[in-house]
Amino acid sequence: MRERLKASPNPILVKYITGPALIRDADRNFKNMMSVNLAHALMLDKQGIIPSEHVKKLLSAILDLKDKGAGALPMSAEYEDFYYNIEQYLIKTIGMETAGKLHTARSRNDLWVTVFRMAVRDAVLKLIPLLLTLRRTLLDMANKHADTILTGYTHMQPAQPITLGYYLSAVAEALERDFTRIIEAYSRLNQCAMGACAFAGTGFDIDRAYVAELLGFDCPIENNMDSIAGRDYQLEILADLAIMGSTINRFTHDIYYWGTNEFGYLEVDNTLASSSSIMPQKKNPITLEFVKSKTSHLLAAFMDAATVLKGIPFGHCKDMIETLKPFWMAADEAEVILIMLNATISTLRIKKDGMKDRADSNYCTATELSDELVKTEGISFRIAYQIVGSIVGDCVDAGLTCKDITAEMLDKAGLIFAGRKFNWPQEKVARALDSAYSVAGKECCGAPGPNSLSAMLGHLEGHLEEDEKTLEKLLAQQQKAEEKLAKEIKKVL
Amino acid sequence: MRERLKASPNPILVKYITGPALIRDADRNFKNMMSVNLAHALMLDKQGIIPSEHVKKLLSAILDLKDKGAGALPMSAEYEDFYYNIEQYLIKTIGMETAGKLHTARSRNDLWVTVFRMAVRDAVLKLIPLLLTLRRTLLDMANKHADTILTGYTHMQPAQPITLGYYLSAVAEALERDFTRIIEAYSRLNQCAMGACAFAGTGFDIDRAYVAELLGFDCPIENNMDSIAGRDYQLEILADLAIMGSTINRFTHDIYYWGTNEFGYLEVDNTLASSSSIMPQKKNPITLEFVKSKTSHLLAAFMDAATVLKGIPFGHCKDMIETLKPFWMAADEAEVILIMLNATISTLRIKKDGMKDRADSNYCTATELSDELVKTEGISFRIAYQIVGSIVGDCVDAGLTCKDITAEMLDKAGLIFAGRKFNWPQEKVARALDSAYSVAGKECCGAPGPNSLSAMLGHLEGHLEEDEKTLEKLLAQQQKAEEKLAKEIKKVL
Amino acid sequence: MRERLKASPNPILVKYITGPALIRDADRNFKNMMSVNLAHALMLDKQGIIPSEHVKKLLSAILDLKDKGAGALPMSAEYEDFYYNIEQYLIKTIGMETAGKLHTARSRNDLWVTVFRMAVRDAVLKLIPLLLTLRRTLLDMANKHADTILTGYTHMQPAQPITLGYYLSAVAEALERDFTRIIEAYSRLNQCAMGACAFAGTGFDIDRAYVAELLGFDCPIENNMDSIAGRDYQLEILADLAIMGSTINRFTHDIYYWGTNEFGYLEVDNTLASSSSIMPQKKNPITLEFVKSKTSHLLAAFMDAATVLKGIPFGHCKDMIETLKPFWMAADEAEVILIMLNATISTLRIKKDGMKDRADSNYCTATELSDELVKTEGISFRIAYQIVGSIVGDCVDAGLTCKDITAEMLDKAGLIFAGRKFNWPQEKVARALDSAYSVAGKECCGAPGPNSLSAMLGHLEGHLEEDEKTLEKLLAQQQKAEEKLAKEIKKVL
Amino acid sequence: MRERLKASPNPILVKYITGPALIRDADRNFKNMMSVNLAHALMLDKQGIIPSEHVKKLLSAILDLKDKGAGALPMSAEYEDFYYNIEQYLIKTIGMETAGKLHTARSRNDLWVTVFRMAVRDAVLKLIPLLLTLRRTLLDMANKHADTILTGYTHMQPAQPITLGYYLSAVAEALERDFTRIIEAYSRLNQCAMGACAFAGTGFDIDRAYVAELLGFDCPIENNMDSIAGRDYQLEILADLAIMGSTINRFTHDIYYWGTNEFGYLEVDNTLASSSSIMPQKKNPITLEFVKSKTSHLLAAFMDAATVLKGIPFGHCKDMIETLKPFWMAADEAEVILIMLNATISTLRIKKDGMKDRADSNYCTATELSDELVKTEGISFRIAYQIVGSIVGDCVDAGLTCKDITAEMLDKAGLIFAGRKFNWPQEKVARALDSAYSVAGKECCGAPGPNSLSAMLGHLEGHLEEDEKTLEKLLAQQQKAEEKLAKEIKKVL
Repeated sequence: MRERLKASPNPILVKYITGPALIRDADRNFKNMMSVNLAHALMLDKQGIIPSEHVKKLLSAILDLKDKGAGALPMSAEYEDFYYNIEQYLIKTIGMETAGKLHTARSRNDLWVTVFRMAVRDAVLKLIPLLLTLRRTLLDMANKHADTILTGYTHMQPAQPITLGYYLSAVAEALERDFTRIIEAYSRLNQCAMGACAFAGTGFDIDRAYVAELLGFDCPIENNMDSIAGRDYQLEILADLAIMGSTINRFTHDIYYWGTNEFGYLEVDNTLASSSSIMPQKKNPITLEFVKSKTSHLLAAFMDAATVLKGIPFGHCKDMIETLKPFWMAADEAEVILIMLNATISTLRIKKDGMKDRADSNYCTATELSDELVKTEGISFRIAYQIVGSIVGDCVDAGLTCKDITAEMLDKAGLIFAGRKFNWPQEKVARALDSAYSVAGKECCGAPGPNSLSAMLGHLEGHLEEDEKTLEKLLAQQQKAEEKLAKEIKKVL
Repeated sequence: MRERLKASPNPILVKYITGPALIRDADRNFKNMMSVNLAHALMLDKQGIIPSEHVKKLLSAILDLKDKGAGALPMSAEYEDFYYNIEQYLIKTIGMETAGKLHTARSRNDLWVTVFRMAVRDAVLKLIPLLLTLRRTLLDMANKHADTILTGYTHMQPAQPITLGYYLSAVAEALERDFTRIIEAYSRLNQCAMGACAFAGTGFDIDRAYVAELLGFDCPIENNMDSIAGRDYQLEILADLAIMGSTINRFTHDIYYWGTNEFGYLEVDNTLASSSSIMPQKKNPITLEFVKSKTSHLLAAFMDAATVLKGIPFGHCKDMIETLKPFWMAADEAEVILIMLNATISTLRIKKDGMKDRADSNYCTATELSDELVKTEGISFRIAYQIVGSIVGDCVDAGLTCKDITAEMLDKAGLIFAGRKFNWPQEKVARALDSAYSVAGKECCGAPGPNSLSAMLGHLEGHLEEDEKTLEKLLAQQQKAEEKLAKEIKKVL
Repeated sequence: MRERLKASPNPILVKYITGPALIRDADRNFKNMMSVNLAHALMLDKQGIIPSEHVKKLLSAILDLKDKGAGALPMSAEYEDFYYNIEQYLIKTIGMETAGKLHTARSRNDLWVTVFRMAVRDAVLKLIPLLLTLRRTLLDMANKHADTILTGYTHMQPAQPITLGYYLSAVAEALERDFTRIIEAYSRLNQCAMGACAFAGTGFDIDRAYVAELLGFDCPIENNMDSIAGRDYQLEILADLAIMGSTINRFTHDIYYWGTNEFGYLEVDNTLASSSSIMPQKKNPITLEFVKSKTSHLLAAFMDAATVLKGIPFGHCKDMIETLKPFWMAADEAEVILIMLNATISTLRIKKDGMKDRADSNYCTATELSDELVKTEGISFRIAYQIVGSIVGDCVDAGLTCKDITAEMLDKAGLIFAGRKFNWPQEKVARALDSAYSVAGKECCGAPGPNSLSAMLGHLEGHLEEDEKTLEKLLAQQQKAEEKLAKEIKKVL
Repeated sequence: MRERLKASPNPILVKYITGPALIRDADRNFKNMMSVNLAHALMLDKQGIIPSEHVKKLLSAILDLKDKGAGALPMSAEYEDFYYNIEQYLIKTIGMETAGKLHTARSRNDLWVTVFRMAVRDAVLKLIPLLLTLRRTLLDMANKHADTILTGYTHMQPAQPITLGYYLSAVAEALERDFTRIIEAYSRLNQCAMGACAFAGTGFDIDRAYVAELLGFDCPIENNMDSIAGRDYQLEILADLAIMGSTINRFTHDIYYWGTNEFGYLEVDNTLASSSSIMPQKKNPITLEFVKSKTSHLLAAFMDAATVLKGIPFGHCKDMIETLKPFWMAADEAEVILIMLNATISTLRIKKDGMKDRADSNYCTATELSDELVKTEGISFRIAYQIVGSIVGDCVDAGLTCKDITAEMLDKAGLIFAGRKFNWPQEKVARALDSAYSVAGKECCGAPGPNSLSAMLGHLEGHLEEDEKTLEKLLAQQQKAEEKLAKEIKKVL
């Protein structure tokens, strides 16, 4: 292949670039490369581009190699890349006359782009079920903890009471969007480059749609140059993973802090914690730490791939392959993140009592007291707010908790801000300040009240089931393509 | 509002945070904030949450303020934020009893999230037409230059002949995907947070769907906590802009290099070039340089916003507002990029002759010669490749160009690699090496041949027209919402 | 200046690029641009490159313009950039024959690079004192709280007792390195490009060292092309700010969480907190939130500038100016970060009792108990660790705190792991578990014990005083340069 | 070690975290870990903290293990990490009583921080010589091509003539700064954490300086908490590599474009080029492409590590280890970049004639003609500029090159702009437009004229030699530490 160059690859090129690439390809890309070769040979046959007897020999030889595995290849860096090693193997096995015909009407460019799209597809099809599992876990927990009272925070300061189920359903809803983004990206990923050749197409009468179907793609990417040049499909998946990572990081951040000694809302399972080598009392929730920090890698991967492309023209250059380096890293990390988070979440020990106790004493029901004044005394919200705000200010200064607020305090502040007393019985004050009462009254689209939450959990369940079906469809498409490829081969042989 | 704190904001807070925020909000968010106030007041009326006479006074006062503009506001940083300044204005104008009622069943949290979503929507609706215009320009040029011969490059080295129209249609196809991504993100952006209140909903019987419709949203975001916490809609748009920036950068990179003295394929318009203060001969294509470098800002904006969220729990914190800083930057830069690129591209002077001359002499037709050997001599592709490769190697060493290849050279190499001569007339060799002949033969789905290209341009035109209609629909939705808001106000007043 | 182009700048260029640049330059770069013009004119005079009578007129006209301010300039975007506007002003004022001579032996390239380096220097000289102030505040607090007991955390779980002063001295030590990095970068920043002209130098017999000195630079950047092309000085400052931001973010993160209701270790001043519009009890520590999130902008700025340069050759292109966009953003944000953090930290209310109480009950002294066993019973550390670890495990399961550990428990575990009892009096157990006792015994280089901490605070004070002197030297250099420039002008006029 | 947790690590933790960590540590950290153990044991002996007979057994066992290699370890993920596996090995070999004493007065925290600093130091000491080699190659080439005429570009358009040697010396000067930054960072990296224990120091009377010296560090990091928490040393090295990557990318970008068919200034060696599988004429300069794109990974690594730290408090968390993931990636990529660039540059074929021809015809000498008018006719620079600018504009329109400019044209434009003719002989015009003449006249500090360039190359050589000595010193320090460690062991045994 180096007739023009008349020189073997430099040892440095072999050591740092082509050598490692061969190992990586044998590991990641052998199977898909075999499928593409088979599909291409079938198409050359179907279109009568090369004689059938050659096609038969090619198919048999490729199937045989597929059985033997990548180990059968010469794997010489002299042959520049993995594909050339396969071609050399075929030349040695069935002769140049036949083997030399396989590369008709294609190029390494469309071949590799197709193989890479298949590998990226494999990676995405591995992540999708993990994301569905995490959503399932969250929904199960949300249902179980639909009425487990929890302080809702803003600015990490107690704000209003909610339930743990309500909180978890918010995260589940956000992860729905993360899922949808990946599915939408999938439709742009799952398109086939075969037939684009180097980037300028071919004069042979090929059938691109046939090859695309045999390889489980939705369709060919029409413009041949765009087929070869486009890497936005990788950027998009990486961006989607980075955004999913953001959702996961924020959620994990909460769980991590709720697990501190000071919050004391929950505890991770002992099997997922680490000890200290010198501090005998330690129980460290390291899986949560890893989940949080590994989301950084997802963001960095997007940024890395985008920066690689920053220096590359709209056309093929060898360094486009460098976008895959961060891609594999991100795919692997996303897998660890999803598995580790799911394992940690699904085995959490939730300390319901601690959650409720705190919600009842940390003033997070103060808004409810204001709302109650608005509803039953007809004063404007801002005035009610001022009344309660001044009471809370005084109580905090006096070292009291929310439970110490009295009807007298309400009257005293009422006189100042509203010009009158309210004469509430103390039970009414206490009820307004009870966290469970507050939550129970929040009935409105998407609110934490029991009916609203129940409806919302129903919707989330519906969407999850739809999304599970989507995954099934995607897997069925691959299954069908594999079967058709096998059937077509059988027809020819 | 600071009854609990009993202290005015610190001058440092005013100088560096609240002060600048007031100016920014008066500039960017006044109009949308007024709309949200009107819609919320209408909903409170419709649901009977506050008495109609108060609603009437509120609507009149808000409409009046809207007419006067943000200049009428006290704009005191003492009042913490822009919303509080509006509330104070209303209190002064129509009294606490009425004005204090407006903030019933909502919070600054859902208010600001909604206003920010409207502002982001405004920004996106400003960018979409610019992207459509660029695609239109590319299609026009592609049609005009459907048969303008151009060297296609890989590794920035001459590879195979294509046409300029074919190249431009590849870019147009890539920008289609960039467009689709933004449209898909729009559906997740265009959802309303109103009614989520602080994040825990409300006990008042509100109608979230009604407010959403009046404000031009598709629907409310169901989970109230997710409504407040979610910022993935910004990350997604930023990612989409960064990816679009990658497409644009790679395209611009080509145009920039084709405009060098050495390539000499095109020239930017003199009005878009700059001179030098000391080098009298200079003509610098600075708009292309700005387009290229400004795409970096789009990438950085995504990364910035994602890193801001890295430190924030799944819930409201004040610093979530810092994601908007890179967002506005990116929206402004994307606008400049699209406008400047379109202006530059649409006034390019294309030097057709230079393009054709180079394609005929730089060996980019060597593959065609190989293909011709395969097609007419029945030898395998790999052997044909070796024949032509060795001829090119020898010619380059001898300082010859592609035009110097002779039928004798072919026979000589044929004997070595295929064991025979081909006896072609010289015209056949010359024809195979003619760039126009090569392009003309590339007829296949998505290839540069005239029929294939024409079909492809038809598809691109079809998609562009559909996408133009999508924009119309989005604008119509906003128009309709504004009309309905006005009508509902009229009904109440 | 556009004789070669024969066309005015396009309105799009004016609106989006040159127009905004003029406004920015008038604001940021006028003063420095005037200084460079004066210094260059003086050098042309000193070297006899242009006649003295022209130099005198030039100096007078520039001084006059400097007094009038940028408002006196025509500020027409027709003249391409800010410098050309100045040149046009001078031409109109003192005639082409004289004004046209100012630009001898220089170019806009070396002029702007020099002006930008001065502006970056101004920004750095503004940040350095703020960083010194923050270090001073930390040292003051560390001295004040040298013996304020605090739980030290790893994995956010109680680990070992320390003191607040010890913790703050750690942060102060880290900020020392952040400071040193900036100072080292300063030496690479503070070099002068004047005389490099477009990038290829000049044939005129100029004196680059003289101009450099008049403008407060340490020396010229030798290679003229490197003078023009180099932007690593900006990247380096940006990297240093990003790393400083990382230190600050991690520190602020701790303060933020220690201020939650659950930790309760400290409270920010009410003047620096915000309220809620509906939750009357709220006190939100928003300055800490802004500090944390704004550090993201510093990181993004570095990444942005580096990505801009990713697409630029080693030479001058117009888009190199785009690195300054993130630079100014970062400089402004760093200023806000340093000021706001210092204001927040220096007014914190520290709750000493809460800190001590928690440290005595959260098992963070368990390691001390192990160490005590090693020291007084001669058993190996690992065995002592096992004894205490099993006691803590049992206590936690039984809902006990650290204070409940008894001498009997020790004997029971001793029998199991060490094969014997220890027969300690209960006071010895209690003392080993007392946080203050633990801290008092940590005497070793850099440890929290009183003597070690005192020594360390002495070192930090010493370094801070040295660094304050460094700042004085940098400022004195600028002062001296300004005086020399004024003196030299006086000599000529 | 998990007495407190009473549970083995979860299989998921083992599979995704601890398992892979063991493999990595055995590979990267075994040798350094052994050195730290030896140094720590020696210190415990010297300070009399544990009895000498135990120290002897420990030293022998560790030396024995060091000889056997990491393969001798149990490598069980049950034991949480690599260190615990070593401890378990020692316990099995020499018994708990002795082995359990090794971990006295230290923790895994200071141990791992120290081991990681040693590993980072190893990586930096591997990169420094590669960077020195690249600088050496550039200087050699610069000396060889001191007078090889080259067009200097701005905006990628011909600007002024320079020489290739001058260009290369600019790059060498920039790389000097990249080198200095790394050396400065080295002083902050090469500090020892041993003795900091978990982060709160120890009550044992240890000697931190002794351990630091034995391990080749300059000194201990004083504050114990800062010792454990600080990761800025990694960020700084990563930032320095990213900035070096920026310099390298910009340089490589130029070389890449100069190697296009259209520029034709140079050609990479055939052994470093790749072919195409279908285009027989191709020669692709892929090493340059890899160098360019791999610099993106350096930038991403910095950003990744900084983002990991974004979510981590100022203290130890397990996920701090995740900054090392991008660090190793960057160290490996930087190695490939430096080696591959050096190999490519040092074997470039420079096409001197093509460079000179183009410089003489592309108007890059127009400035020289203006300067000549200023020098010999006494007109102002701006008028000279107008004269030449209008001539060039007319010539370009007429399709002429620079060589076609005549004395008549000069007179014609002179009359218009300066009101007079110059009556130059044509030779004077031609000489002013000769690229070699232009370069020869540029004699000034840092300019391309032969004397200036020669002086500059002398300076660069001087700096390079100093920097080579710095490397020798750093290596000598390591050598000395190893020898002292061996000697101290011998003394005890």
